[in-house]
Amino acid sequence: MERFTIGIDAGSGGTNLKEIAKGAFLAAYDLPDATLVLIGVRSLLFRYLAEISKNLNKPIPNNITIWIGEGIPVEMEDDPVLALASKKDSSMVKAFFWLKEGALDALITPGSTSVAGYGGYRRIGPINRGIRPGIITPFPTVNGRYSYVMDSGALADCRSQELVGFSAMATSYLRSSLDYTNPSVGILSIGEEKKKGNKLIEEVWLQIDSNSGFGLNFIDGNIEGRDIPLGTTDIIVCDGYTGNIVLKLSESLAKSVLEMVINSMTRTTKGKIGAALVKTNLKEDLRVLDYEEYGGAIMLGIKKPLIICHGNSGWKAIYNATVKTTFSALSNRVIEAMKSDLLQIDWKELAGKK
Amino acid sequence: MERFTIGIDAGSGGTNLKEIAKGAFLAAYDLPDATLVLIGVRSLLFRYLAEISKNLNKPIPNNITIWIGEGIPVEMEDDPVLALASKKDSSMVKAFFWLKEGALDALITPGSTSVAGYGGYRRIGPINRGIRPGIITPFPTVNGRYSYVMDSGALADCRSQELVGFSAMATSYLRSSLDYTNPSVGILSIGEEKKKGNKLIEEVWLQIDSNSGFGLNFIDGNIEGRDIPLGTTDIIVCDGYTGNIVLKLSESLAKSVLEMVINSMTRTTKGKIGAALVKTNLKEDLRVLDYEEYGGAIMLGIKKPLIICHGNSGWKAIYNATVKTTFSALSNRVIEAMKSDLLQIDWKELAGKK
Repeated sequence: MERFTIGIDAGSGGTNLKEIAKGAFLAAYDLPDATLVLIGVRSLLFRYLAEISKNLNKPIPNNITIWIGEGIPVEMEDDPVLALASKKDSSMVKAFFWLKEGALDALITPGSTSVAGYGGYRRIGPINRGIRPGIITPFPTVNGRYSYVMDSGALADCRSQELVGFSAMATSYLRSSLDYTNPSVGILSIGEEKKKGNKLIEEVWLQIDSNSGFGLNFIDGNIEGRDIPLGTTDIIVCDGYTGNIVLKLSESLAKSVLEMVINSMTRTTKGKIGAALVKTNLKEDLRVLDYEEYGGAIMLGIKKPLIICHGNSGWKAIYNATVKTTFSALSNRVIEAMKSDLLQIDWKELAGKK
Repeated sequence: MERFTIGIDAGSGGTNLKEIAKGAFLAAYDLPDATLVLIGVRSLLFRYLAEISKNLNKPIPNNITIWIGEGIPVEMEDDPVLALASKKDSSMVKAFFWLKEGALDALITPGSTSVAGYGGYRRIGPINRGIRPGIITPFPTVNGRYSYVMDSGALADCRSQELVGFSAMATSYLRSSLDYTNPSVGILSIGEEKKKGNKLIEEVWLQIDSNSGFGLNFIDGNIEGRDIPLGTTDIIVCDGYTGNIVLKLSESLAKSVLEMVINSMTRTTKGKIGAALVKTNLKEDLRVLDYEEYGGAIMLGIKKPLIICHGNSGWKAIYNATVKTTFSALSNRVIEAMKSDLLQIDWKELAGKK
C-alpha cells in the first residue's frame, strides 16, 4: 500500500490548535499507512501533542510529525490576494507550497475559507484549463444519507458553464470516492419548471438540453429549497453565493430548532422528566445533524485534494476530515478519476456558447 | 371607522377551497368592520359556507360575500404573461381588475406566486416609477420574534438599486404596520465584511456608503446564512432567487428536524413515555415555526395591498393572512406611508449610478 502524506494546517488564525492537534493525534492511530503532518509553531504543537499523549495515556504515534510554519498567520478576515502574496511563512501558505511541490499529497485547513479557496485555485491550479473549482459539502437529509451541495462558497459569481462543471465534478467525486454508480443531479432554483429561476438557471438548462445532459444524471426540472433536506437528489448544484448561504443557514437553523426543543421540554417539571427519558434516543439519532461527523468539505477541480474545515472545528471534525474525507479521496484516486471524467466535456465550446 | 373590502381568491388551481372558505368565514366574525369577498365559483363556495356554518353551528356572517370568478382558473405552473392575458375570467385575474378599479381595497391569493407577483406589478402597478416590487415574508427566529425577508421570490434577478429599494420598503412597512421605530436592515451575503459576497453585494455597499445609508438603519457589514434564524436583524435583504430558496429551505428543514425528533423519541418504549410528557410543551412552544401562524406574505411596492399565501394554505393561514397581515396593512395605511417614505430617495439617480 502506498504511504500518503497528509498536511494539516495547524497555524491559521481563528482556529483551535489544541483541538486540531487532538484530531490529528487520534487520526494518526487510525491511519497507520499515512503520515500526518501538523504545520505551525513547532514548540507549541509539540507541547499540545505531549499533553494529549498524557491525557489519553497513549504515546505520540510515530506517523505524526510537525513542519514549521511560524510566520504571521493567515487570519479569517484576510484578503485572499494579499494574504497569499504577503504571508509566505504562514502555516497555510507554506502548506500550499508543499502541496504543490509534492511533499504533501493532500492538505486539510480550518483557516479562512476564502484564502484557502483562492490558494487552491492559484497555487495548486485547476485540473484543466476550462474548469473553475468549487467546494462540495455533505448535507444531512431526513432519509439518513447525505446530499452534496456544490459550490458551497468558492465561486460567488458563476456563469452557466461553471454550474455544468460543478455538476460534472460532483458526479465524478461521488462515483470515485463515495461509491455512487449514477448519482442524480438537481439544479437549485425557485420552481420545478426549467424556466423558473434567474437568468443563470435559464442558461444552464439551455446548455444541458442542447448537450444531452453531458451524460450526467440530471433530473428533469429544478429542485427547490424545500427539497434540500429531503434528499431529493444526491447532488445539489448552485452558485457559491447561494450554496454558502444554504449551508450556513441550515446548520444554524437545525441547531436553533433543537435548542428550542430542549428549552421547551425542560421548562416544566413534568417536561424535565420526559426529557430525561428521551435524551439517549435524541443524542444517538440526531448526531447526523452535527457537521463534525463529516468534518470537512473538499475542493474539487484542482490538481490535489484540498479539504476545508470550519474555523471553529473541534477534534472530531479534524479527525473525520482526515480519516474519512481526505484518506478516502487519496486512496480512491479521486483526482485521477476526475481528470479522465472531465475529458468527456468540451469546455472551450461550452464557454463560447450562450 | 372606515369599512374595508378584502378580496380572497377562492378559485385558483392547486389551492384548497374548503379551507379558504373556512378561513374567510372565521375571519369575517373577527373583522366586523370589513367586508370579505370570496372570489370563485359561486354555487360551490356558497355550499362550502353553508357546510361550515352547519359544522360550527354559527350562521354565515353578514359581512362575507361571493363574487363570480368562474373562468378557467390560474394554475400553479402557468406562465405569468400568458395567464394574465388569456385567463381574464379566472378568479385571480378578475380579482386584480377589481383591486385596480377600487371595488376591493386589498387582495389575498393562495394561487400561483409567480402569476400573482407579476399581476401585482403589471395590473396594480408600482407605487413609483423607479421601484420594482418585492415580497416580504416573516421568518420565525429563536428570540421569539420574526425577522422579515425581502425579496422572497418576486424578482429573481436584481440590480443593486433593487436591493436598496427592498431595504427602504421593508423599513417603511415595519414602521407603519408593525410598530417598529427604527428596524435594523441586514444585507445577506457570505461573509461579514462588506467586500465578501458576489458582485451584486459589492455594488449595493457602494450605493449605501455613498448615500449615508439613505437614512435607513443598515448594520455595518453583511449578515450571513447562520444569522437568519438568530434574528440578528429585523430585516434581511436579498435578491428574490436567494430569498425564495432561504424560505422554502427553512420551512422544510424545521419540519424535517421536528419529524426526526419525534421519530427518535418514540422509537423505544421508554422514549414514548417521555414523549407523552413533553408533548404539551412542544406543541405550545413550537407553534412559532408554523407558517400558518402568520399566514401570508405581502407584496410591497405596488399601489394596493396584495397578500400572497402558500398554495396548500389551510384555514388558519387564510384566517391569519386576513386578520393579521391584510387588515393591519389597511388600517395602518401602509401604502400611503410607503409612498411618502419612498420620496426620500432619488430613484432615478440611483438607477444611473454604479
